[in-house]
Amino acid sequence: MPPTVDLSRFDNSWYRPGRPFWVQSLWFFLGQPLLRASLNPSSSLRRALLRLFGAHVGRGVVIKPGVRVKYPWLLRVGDYAWIGEDAWIDNLALVSIGANACISQAAYLCTGNHDWSDLHFALKLGPIDIGDGAWVGARAVICPGTKLSEGAVASAGSVASGELQPNGIYAGNPATLLRHRQLRSTGTITPR
Amino acid sequence: MPPTVDLSRFDNSWYRPGRPFWVQSLWFFLGQPLLRASLNPSSSLRRALLRLFGAHVGRGVVIKPGVRVKYPWLLRVGDYAWIGEDAWIDNLALVSIGANACISQAAYLCTGNHDWSDLHFALKLGPIDIGDGAWVGARAVICPGTKLSEGAVASAGSVASGELQPNGIYAGNPATLLRHRQLRSTGTITPR
Amino acid sequence: MPPTVDLSRFDNSWYRPGRPFWVQSLWFFLGQPLLRASLNPSSSLRRALLRLFGAHVGRGVVIKPGVRVKYPWLLRVGDYAWIGEDAWIDNLALVSIGANACISQAAYLCTGNHDWSDLHFALKLGPIDIGDGAWVGARAVICPGTKLSEGAVASAGSVASGELQPNGIYAGNPATLLRHRQLRSTGTITPR
Repeated sequence: MPPTVDLSRFDNSWYRPGRPFWVQSLWFFLGQPLLRASLNPSSSLRRALLRLFGAHVGRGVVIKPGVRVKYPWLLRVGDYAWIGEDAWIDNLALVSIGANACISQAAYLCTGNHDWSDLHFALKLGPIDIGDGAWVGARAVICPGTKLSEGAVASAGSVASGELQPNGIYAGNPATLLRHRQLRSTGTITPR
Repeated sequence: MPPTVDLSRFDNSWYRPGRPFWVQSLWFFLGQPLLRASLNPSSSLRRALLRLFGAHVGRGVVIKPGVRVKYPWLLRVGDYAWIGEDAWIDNLALVSIGANACISQAAYLCTGNHDWSDLHFALKLGPIDIGDGAWVGARAVICPGTKLSEGAVASAGSVASGELQPNGIYAGNPATLLRHRQLRSTGTITPR
Repeated sequence: MPPTVDLSRFDNSWYRPGRPFWVQSLWFFLGQPLLRASLNPSSSLRRALLRLFGAHVGRGVVIKPGVRVKYPWLLRVGDYAWIGEDAWIDNLALVSIGANACISQAAYLCTGNHDWSDLHFALKLGPIDIGDGAWVGARAVICPGTKLSEGAVASAGSVASGELQPNGIYAGNPATLLRHRQLRSTGTITPR
């Protein structure tokens, strides 16, 4: 008889989130609901809240309502980055978001995986690294262990894994490289 | 040294949502939460609320709980259209939904984009036009500037952009044309 | 003139959810909000609640906050299965989740479809069968009528339909077979 999956013996007792249980609970019951609150439009309150719980959050970071962060102490966000409405940073492992990076609405950053070859579905973690000036599009899914190099783009709705090239523009599921981003030095703002 | 993205100089001051700030605030703090309320099953209250804030909403439109609309005054919905649970109409620009069209559960209609060639990530808008009798499937993503022609279908989970042909059935990410919809004139209803 | 879609004559009066209206209402207004409550971390309360409304829920089933179930009496969950945060089981028809199966975060299981050839968009239902030890990845979409055979995997963000082979690993949109899962009998847990 072939072996079968047995989740009753799943064991993640080796995993340490990095803060005592009471801090985790305080975040779960108080911090997270305040971060996520849909009626609070203020980025500065959200920045303060995340910092209070150990996140490194740079200057001028924009954080919209509905944002979820699993463990703030495993989050680093560079200056002037944006985190859009309902973005979900599911950071069992470190998530680094570079300066001037944009995480758009309802993007999902996933750091938890399972070893599907293991009968007990062992938890595997993969940190996520979003480079400076990179862009995670709306509703995109970023898989565990993914790196978006500087300026890389994962388009709306894409599902990205592995390492995305600097300034590479990726789309689709699985996300593939379409072309490279050419940044204009002018930066003129023209409404369309 | 190559130019790098600088979001600190992002400037969307040219953008005018079309209503004074107090109306936007009233929608954000009062209208939107009422529209989205998960315990209110009534479509007629939702239609009234959207109309009160300037949406054109036809007769018999079905609107489920959890629906989000950024700016109601930029929304037009034709007679007997359906908007499913948790559908998100992120209409910085006009979203038109035709008569008898169906926007299924958790679909995301996105009108806001950014110029990734621009150092300051200039905001770009693209209106969305969903034709009469068209169908946006559950969890589908409709990108800025997309047009679903009359009767077109973007299947569940698809990511659609550009112009979808009349009665074209699209699926995948990116969504591609699979075949054309043949409407039977009989319209017999048969449970399966 | 070609026939056009007419949702004003949509008729799902043949559909019977299987419980009287007052039970449906009690679930909608009371049971569902309690199941979904983001501040209740307890799986055992959720199991009790689902069973109270007629679900078959096995031993040791893990159910996270944010989970939605349309009709609990149309849900069967085997021993030691997991249902992740914000998973959405939209079960107008029966959804069976096998023992030791995992439904990850924000997965969407959809049993309701429409006949797009029908002028009145007739409702079509398709039950979903998730086999023992199978895994529905985070943000995956499982379409009406889909069967994940024992041990099958629908990766994160995939959109799956039809029948997935035993121990088949599927990814993408549409989800395609990548390879087969080889279960190790050792089951050693090694942090990575």
